[in-house]
Amino acid sequence: MDYKAESLKLHETHKGKIEVISKVKLENKDDLSIAYTPGVAEPCLRIKENVNDSYKYTSRGNIVAVITDGSAVLGLGNIGPYAAMPVMEGKSILLKEFGKIDSIPVCLDTQDPDEIIKTCKILAPTFGAINLEDISAPRCVTIERKLKEELDIPVFHDDQHGTAIIVVAALINCLRLTKKKASDIKVVMSGMGAAGSSIARMLKKIGVAKVYATNSKGVIDKKKYDTYNFVVKELLDEGILDSPESGDGTLASALVGANMFVGVSAPGLVTKDMVKSMAKDPFIFALANPTPEIMPTDAKEAGAYIVGTGRSDFPNQINNVLAFPGIFRGALDAHATKITEEMKVAASYAIANVIADNELSPDYIVPSPFDKRVVLAVSKAVADKAIEQGVIRKQ
Amino acid sequence: MDYKAESLKLHETHKGKIEVISKVKLENKDDLSIAYTPGVAEPCLRIKENVNDSYKYTSRGNIVAVITDGSAVLGLGNIGPYAAMPVMEGKSILLKEFGKIDSIPVCLDTQDPDEIIKTCKILAPTFGAINLEDISAPRCVTIERKLKEELDIPVFHDDQHGTAIIVVAALINCLRLTKKKASDIKVVMSGMGAAGSSIARMLKKIGVAKVYATNSKGVIDKKKYDTYNFVVKELLDEGILDSPESGDGTLASALVGANMFVGVSAPGLVTKDMVKSMAKDPFIFALANPTPEIMPTDAKEAGAYIVGTGRSDFPNQINNVLAFPGIFRGALDAHATKITEEMKVAASYAIANVIADNELSPDYIVPSPFDKRVVLAVSKAVADKAIEQGVIRKQ
Repeated sequence: MDYKAESLKLHETHKGKIEVISKVKLENKDDLSIAYTPGVAEPCLRIKENVNDSYKYTSRGNIVAVITDGSAVLGLGNIGPYAAMPVMEGKSILLKEFGKIDSIPVCLDTQDPDEIIKTCKILAPTFGAINLEDISAPRCVTIERKLKEELDIPVFHDDQHGTAIIVVAALINCLRLTKKKASDIKVVMSGMGAAGSSIARMLKKIGVAKVYATNSKGVIDKKKYDTYNFVVKELLDEGILDSPESGDGTLASALVGANMFVGVSAPGLVTKDMVKSMAKDPFIFALANPTPEIMPTDAKEAGAYIVGTGRSDFPNQINNVLAFPGIFRGALDAHATKITEEMKVAASYAIANVIADNELSPDYIVPSPFDKRVVLAVSKAVADKAIEQGVIRKQ
Repeated sequence: MDYKAESLKLHETHKGKIEVISKVKLENKDDLSIAYTPGVAEPCLRIKENVNDSYKYTSRGNIVAVITDGSAVLGLGNIGPYAAMPVMEGKSILLKEFGKIDSIPVCLDTQDPDEIIKTCKILAPTFGAINLEDISAPRCVTIERKLKEELDIPVFHDDQHGTAIIVVAALINCLRLTKKKASDIKVVMSGMGAAGSSIARMLKKIGVAKVYATNSKGVIDKKKYDTYNFVVKELLDEGILDSPESGDGTLASALVGANMFVGVSAPGLVTKDMVKSMAKDPFIFALANPTPEIMPTDAKEAGAYIVGTGRSDFPNQINNVLAFPGIFRGALDAHATKITEEMKVAASYAIANVIADNELSPDYIVPSPFDKRVVLAVSKAVADKAIEQGVIRKQ
């Protein structure tokens, strides 16, 4: 199927993908008097008395804003706010379809981080949570961090954490299948963009022994500390990223003896010889889209035991839609005020555990995005963890 | 019916009034690949090439933002953005029900005019038009004016212009019924808040001979020019408001011999004696809500020929819902870049002319909000006028 042509046709036929409808009827004067003036004054006054009643009397508690500045849209780069809208509307309808969440795409006509932060804060009374989307790194880290500090609603940058949650879910199932422990595992990553730092943090959080990473200039190494942006410096400072003890600083040298490769970088960076140099039966997650760091057939031929990509036409698709609808559903259900590292890890385990022991196989490491059990499991795990951690709104 | 109790129940049962749904199906991998990645890249790239294609491939062209800062909500005053939401959601569902418009309520956590203007500009790529709502005067004038100058999408502050459009429609039908001309008419207004200045401007635009106005300090008079805010000063400078040639500067003295009273002020300001002092068979539009400047029964007893209020339980309700859905429908349909004075006047005539000559009576001067002909007539008149004036977007 020609997805591009079909997509153009779909978008033109429907003039976009979202519609805003009324949950209540408006057929006569009484309906108007109840849904609008004069009756509507009463819920307004209740909320004025207690701002938390905004969750009781308005749609806010089920509304997630999908906010972008259009600076890093899909693989298309900085295409700006107008051109970003079809992706944001797509995210909106995924939230609805998979998470029963009402969501509003918001494309901002600014790429200044301070203005983006300010705008999100000004918009906050309208929303129950904010999903930041397709904002370029490392700006996205600054923006998300500041908003998490200053707002009392969940803020989640899916490009950072969504992929990380699924990669960790995949690793959990790789370990289950091979009866290894996280602490036995050495991971090499390629790419330290939006997703990279969150993946590295979550890998260490679940106990992975060593995490090395490469960027376009080779293996990240504390010896070259001053050449890195603040995100990478923090990863080195906090011991999230390890520095190589040997090797020539190339991806090839880092991969020697590694158990897992996670690529969030560029097509074709990994060769069959590199896979052959890894530890026995390695796990290869080559997530560059649409062309992975190494094609699954090549990786398998070179000895990979488990291979995942970002594509739906190969097994083990690392698809963010497995995570974000349940993450937001759980956060909204629990009245969470933030999404913590622990909530994300809980989501990873929930996704992994949807697949029963007797179903698990090298070609079935992550569930299908259409598996209805996923969102239920993720939302419950996330809500339970929020309540356990007490990161919920006081009434 | 106890509208307050019913309204609370309705809002709590449904948790607000709006829902965001998908216009397209998402049932399998192909659906995902067309509505989202990889297919969605194609409409993105088309919009990047030609920003106007955002109207072709996204929902933007049918989305109106209902934006408030919560500073002047209904008659409740400055209740802030959280408490304003039930009203904004109400406006949204009215736009949908009456105008088939998708709209998004946006409550801003700022009351600084410059920040509001800045935020609206940053949000503009998301919307096809902006409806400003319940922003206090005279700030609302500053904000709307600046946004009209700087944005290429329609911006309309309903509290200013909605009421004005219906008042003028009502006057048009008062004149039809009594076979008078606008140039024969002397109007006295009470209240120079958000709606007042727009009413005065439109009355003069359709040819009313004299328009006098009172505020809380009495009749507005160029002799007291320095005591007024910039909005009133402009009305005096431009000859929109006339200054009294006689009288003691009170509303009572201004009403002597007047043909029409328009109140957008406070309960009970007008007495039966004042009505008796007006010209024969006067038109009384006492729009203070819920308690008018004079009750319709009193006005009639004192000789008023035609009486209108803001209430649905008396004849001739001056209800903004007669105007704004058709205004926005017409502006969006015509690809209008702004809403001009002439488009508003066209809307007034369209509303008035929904009532045929043989239907017109003192108790049927304005159509019912549920008359389906209204939105069709208004949207066509507004769209035709936008096209005639050439205030439409270039392709």
